[in-house]
Amino acid sequence: MIVVIKSQTPASEIERIIQELSQYSATIEKVIGKDKVVIGLVGDTSVISPEHVQQISPFIEQVVRVKQPFKRVSLEYRYGEPSEVVVPTPNGPVTFGQNHPLIVVAGPCSVENEEMIVETAQVVKATGAQFLRGGAYKPRSSPYAFQGHGESALSLLATAREVTGLGIITEVMDTADLDKVAEVADVVQIGARNMQNFSLLKKAGATGKPILLKRGLSATIEEWLMAAEYILAAGNPNVILCERGIRSFDKQYTRNVLDLSVVPVLRGLTHLPIMIDPSHATGYSKFVPTMAKAAIAAGTDSLMIEVHPNPSKALSDGPQSLTPPDFVELMQELASLAQFFGRGTK
Amino acid sequence: MIVVIKSQTPASEIERIIQELSQYSATIEKVIGKDKVVIGLVGDTSVISPEHVQQISPFIEQVVRVKQPFKRVSLEYRYGEPSEVVVPTPNGPVTFGQNHPLIVVAGPCSVENEEMIVETAQVVKATGAQFLRGGAYKPRSSPYAFQGHGESALSLLATAREVTGLGIITEVMDTADLDKVAEVADVVQIGARNMQNFSLLKKAGATGKPILLKRGLSATIEEWLMAAEYILAAGNPNVILCERGIRSFDKQYTRNVLDLSVVPVLRGLTHLPIMIDPSHATGYSKFVPTMAKAAIAAGTDSLMIEVHPNPSKALSDGPQSLTPPDFVELMQELASLAQFFGRGTK
Amino acid sequence: MIVVIKSQTPASEIERIIQELSQYSATIEKVIGKDKVVIGLVGDTSVISPEHVQQISPFIEQVVRVKQPFKRVSLEYRYGEPSEVVVPTPNGPVTFGQNHPLIVVAGPCSVENEEMIVETAQVVKATGAQFLRGGAYKPRSSPYAFQGHGESALSLLATAREVTGLGIITEVMDTADLDKVAEVADVVQIGARNMQNFSLLKKAGATGKPILLKRGLSATIEEWLMAAEYILAAGNPNVILCERGIRSFDKQYTRNVLDLSVVPVLRGLTHLPIMIDPSHATGYSKFVPTMAKAAIAAGTDSLMIEVHPNPSKALSDGPQSLTPPDFVELMQELASLAQFFGRGTK
Amino acid sequence: MIVVIKSQTPASEIERIIQELSQYSATIEKVIGKDKVVIGLVGDTSVISPEHVQQISPFIEQVVRVKQPFKRVSLEYRYGEPSEVVVPTPNGPVTFGQNHPLIVVAGPCSVENEEMIVETAQVVKATGAQFLRGGAYKPRSSPYAFQGHGESALSLLATAREVTGLGIITEVMDTADLDKVAEVADVVQIGARNMQNFSLLKKAGATGKPILLKRGLSATIEEWLMAAEYILAAGNPNVILCERGIRSFDKQYTRNVLDLSVVPVLRGLTHLPIMIDPSHATGYSKFVPTMAKAAIAAGTDSLMIEVHPNPSKALSDGPQSLTPPDFVELMQELASLAQFFGRGTK
Repeated sequence: MIVVIKSQTPASEIERIIQELSQYSATIEKVIGKDKVVIGLVGDTSVISPEHVQQISPFIEQVVRVKQPFKRVSLEYRYGEPSEVVVPTPNGPVTFGQNHPLIVVAGPCSVENEEMIVETAQVVKATGAQFLRGGAYKPRSSPYAFQGHGESALSLLATAREVTGLGIITEVMDTADLDKVAEVADVVQIGARNMQNFSLLKKAGATGKPILLKRGLSATIEEWLMAAEYILAAGNPNVILCERGIRSFDKQYTRNVLDLSVVPVLRGLTHLPIMIDPSHATGYSKFVPTMAKAAIAAGTDSLMIEVHPNPSKALSDGPQSLTPPDFVELMQELASLAQFFGRGTK
Repeated sequence: MIVVIKSQTPASEIERIIQELSQYSATIEKVIGKDKVVIGLVGDTSVISPEHVQQISPFIEQVVRVKQPFKRVSLEYRYGEPSEVVVPTPNGPVTFGQNHPLIVVAGPCSVENEEMIVETAQVVKATGAQFLRGGAYKPRSSPYAFQGHGESALSLLATAREVTGLGIITEVMDTADLDKVAEVADVVQIGARNMQNFSLLKKAGATGKPILLKRGLSATIEEWLMAAEYILAAGNPNVILCERGIRSFDKQYTRNVLDLSVVPVLRGLTHLPIMIDPSHATGYSKFVPTMAKAAIAAGTDSLMIEVHPNPSKALSDGPQSLTPPDFVELMQELASLAQFFGRGTK
Repeated sequence: MIVVIKSQTPASEIERIIQELSQYSATIEKVIGKDKVVIGLVGDTSVISPEHVQQISPFIEQVVRVKQPFKRVSLEYRYGEPSEVVVPTPNGPVTFGQNHPLIVVAGPCSVENEEMIVETAQVVKATGAQFLRGGAYKPRSSPYAFQGHGESALSLLATAREVTGLGIITEVMDTADLDKVAEVADVVQIGARNMQNFSLLKKAGATGKPILLKRGLSATIEEWLMAAEYILAAGNPNVILCERGIRSFDKQYTRNVLDLSVVPVLRGLTHLPIMIDPSHATGYSKFVPTMAKAAIAAGTDSLMIEVHPNPSKALSDGPQSLTPPDFVELMQELASLAQFFGRGTK
Repeated sequence: MIVVIKSQTPASEIERIIQELSQYSATIEKVIGKDKVVIGLVGDTSVISPEHVQQISPFIEQVVRVKQPFKRVSLEYRYGEPSEVVVPTPNGPVTFGQNHPLIVVAGPCSVENEEMIVETAQVVKATGAQFLRGGAYKPRSSPYAFQGHGESALSLLATAREVTGLGIITEVMDTADLDKVAEVADVVQIGARNMQNFSLLKKAGATGKPILLKRGLSATIEEWLMAAEYILAAGNPNVILCERGIRSFDKQYTRNVLDLSVVPVLRGLTHLPIMIDPSHATGYSKFVPTMAKAAIAAGTDSLMIEVHPNPSKALSDGPQSLTPPDFVELMQELASLAQFFGRGTK
């Protein structure tokens, strides 16, 4: 249930309303939007009468029940206003959000060594992208495959950050590693296979760090939003939703099916910003440029693209990684298309 | 197997080569491309030695085995050159193809009566779209649902064609109706549910009419191309492939998942032109504009969009139909985006 | 809507009730069950008041609205009584139904020549199976694959029928072939790819021949029952539903996923008898015996099993065909299991 | 790569062979089967020549490369011999395995309070089932749904174990809880959503406790076996594979699709024992008895069945839970069917 406060209501009156609302056995949250303040009540609100709440103050504009099973994540919870996830990086704050320029995250699947990650970071920086991605802990189907360099890779990411000023996005796989990862990462990624690792979601929510939540391989949109709700419910509103392809009956030519219609669908359901990852979705670098453009046309707020200095020698996911020259060329095309859609960097 | 003929080979020599090739027990086809003539041999060509064929003439540039299970449909079969499907319409010939402007097909799910179909056709015409779609025979899950007006609807389509000069695209469901449909339609549609109705494919191939082949709800890309191969094998090279959404585990917010990555995938596999139908794919008109734009960015050659003068009263598929004003607005946006991608009408 | 007539109501009163009901604009059908007569009204019955109907006669026990979108196919339509499909064969009538012994249909994918089909039929006969299956018209993904011998294969099936007295089940793919197929077949099969070939369903419904309706590769249970409804709505109540595996994300070890839970699910939804085809479902003969047993434990009324005298040389679907000795052995095991479940032949 | 040792080879010679093999950079494991000892080499064995290994000793029967990506889990790794997972319980050791009686695990979705869990345990015990299941930590889609009573539930499970002597199976969701769970559980469950939580798999492997590994909702069979390989690679050979339904396009009548063909498929791929969970697979108690029987016919080694003293008041998964009387009745039917298949308790 949300209580929408009229514009220009005195702060003291808002506090008084919150005071009054605390009589109900529900968690109370103040959401400060551009135009409006909204007070959210989460819990068993079925017993609370909207009419009764309405009478608390003449400064209450409206009392609305959120009908979706996801509450804090729902668009209604912010009274229709998209949220912004602002990430401080050495190069300055970067904002993910619907009314902001397109953000690009790029880098290799795994951090392999200092030279490759710093070199890649420099390419990424030069193209105008804002974040470096790179795996320290890698979820691999086989226990015998390269599992990531772990802590040492984290410190290489820190070096790349220092050298380029880029923000860092890297994945956490175990609640036990969360602190270490959060220390280096500007955005902590929860991967597709862990989308319903609820322990990890709760603890990630408790860190306060921005979280990139990838959609599970066969997660419904509702399940995805409920997973995000776990993070928000734990007190962390900084979640970015990343579509990376879903599993289908046809894996012959692409690894997954990129479900681009999530962009307009999510716009009607949630205030959270959206990222599209065409690299994991298609699994082949030759399809990445086209699908990155389609993602921009679909309205994504950000893109995640794999780049590797030498894809054929990559320790993981080589076939889906662009070479630096191809990435540079793509970034020019993307910039021009983003401009067309009013999402240019300047 | 294809035999690529050198540029500027005398016609008589090509005929001689074909003559020589007729010793093999394979079907022989001459494919005339922009730059090259290619002679296709289809059948059990495993017994034919490429080296042997090469020796037939010094004008043979190359002899290549087509490794794909689809032969005539494969990109190799035209030596990498995209094909064009040219459809004569009262307003002049319209060309579907990769190096041509974006083609738009629009109209209602079903032809309901003369007024609605002519009115819609006029709106469609006014926006610059080239084809009117409208169902005379409707595949419906329920035997008790509206099944289309059949033959009388065909004659209403003929009227709309006369009034507006638009080309007509309508679906055939039964081999017994093929002649009647082909008489009125400029492009005959084979629907998703009939994609592997092999009898229909063969007979549609025999008509010579351009065929719009929709992808089955859970058809793999290879199965889809093999279905197209049935039509080409029956002697009809004029096939357009239409993606209209595939079935997934999540039907809560969209009817199907629009698999846009088919565009770059098909580009590497086949010479046939591509159409995207965001209306059936998403099932809701509010998602259609966004996905139409994404389809253009993905590189589609054409779009199919449902428009109905009064969606809430439509006899079928109302929720996915745009109103005329929304369609007019969308067409302006699409024109500008097509222009951006070099696929503008002029 | 159904009108349940009390037991021992005089026939003349039933006729009077039907007479009275004909005032409504709905199709009226008399369904004679073991215990009860039920009068079905199909059409727009939303305007008919059950209370009003009830007053027509004191012999009316109950008036019930069928809430399912499928009407004639629904279990309610027969007031909970399973239907029987009785098929006359040279060896005598065979009954498919829930309270009857397990029926087995066996034979090769395709009819290849007289010797193989007669030889196989004799093996099938010897094991106690009641029907011979064999394809004359074959739906094949590739136009270059063996398409079945067509009419000549039909006459070979007729020969096998004459020699063994077995009933014949064979597939029809084109409305144009329906009469020819129905002449030879005791049960006409509509294949998975044609499950929503609505023209074929309607015309198959008009023949009156028992129809075996295979579930589409990605058809929901509701869509499947709606497809059956097309046949019943066309006047043919003799439909057997055959599950043959559905499409999933994993095709590495089996071609499809055999969805055995359809058996208990269908029992709660429809009165129609059920068949399970473990051969097409799994795609490998080594899995067929196990899944045939599981199907019996799940309660199927019948099984369809592929047998070929020489699977490695079969023109189609060899890998999923049992050899005659393996089939003979399996039939003994199945007989004993059917006995355990009270479905033995006697 | 496996090195099969001839029967009756002296122990000292086996040790000598192992000694010799330690020159290769591969992990060496001795697998003691009923008839044979097999020495497994896991790692980059592509550089090791089988011929060279063969020459180490005349007591080496055969040297075989394991071609599957899963090694320790593969059937070849035990030279075709099924493994047994023996679980000590207060009532004595219970053996899961292909040549052993059917094992039944039953209990509620969640441990709700002492009375209900002890009462249920007593019913379970009385029917002859060997294990009590019950969730202390519950993976729930919604953060606002009941999450399990955690540690206090673990101690209630310990009580139920003490009272009845049944073994306990309960789920772990977080690596941080593993020790606590392993202290109470006789078998530790890793749930479907965590099947590719690789950190959890590794740490579960390190405990040595028997692990029940549920198949992910859209995990391929290969991915599932690779997940099991993580546990074996961490030194724990005691893994039971549990199929609990996969995600499909049709969720109208069942929650998931029970993929029973995994039983014969797994028999050809792995030595590990198999469990089937018809409760989660179908999602409705009315379908559980039928699918439990089908699972036995398919050859499962064990069943997991949800039972709740009062399903309509269950805190989670009520609709799929059997009542105690229904469970008692089912167990009698299952016992008789298991007997039929030679899998009776005695």
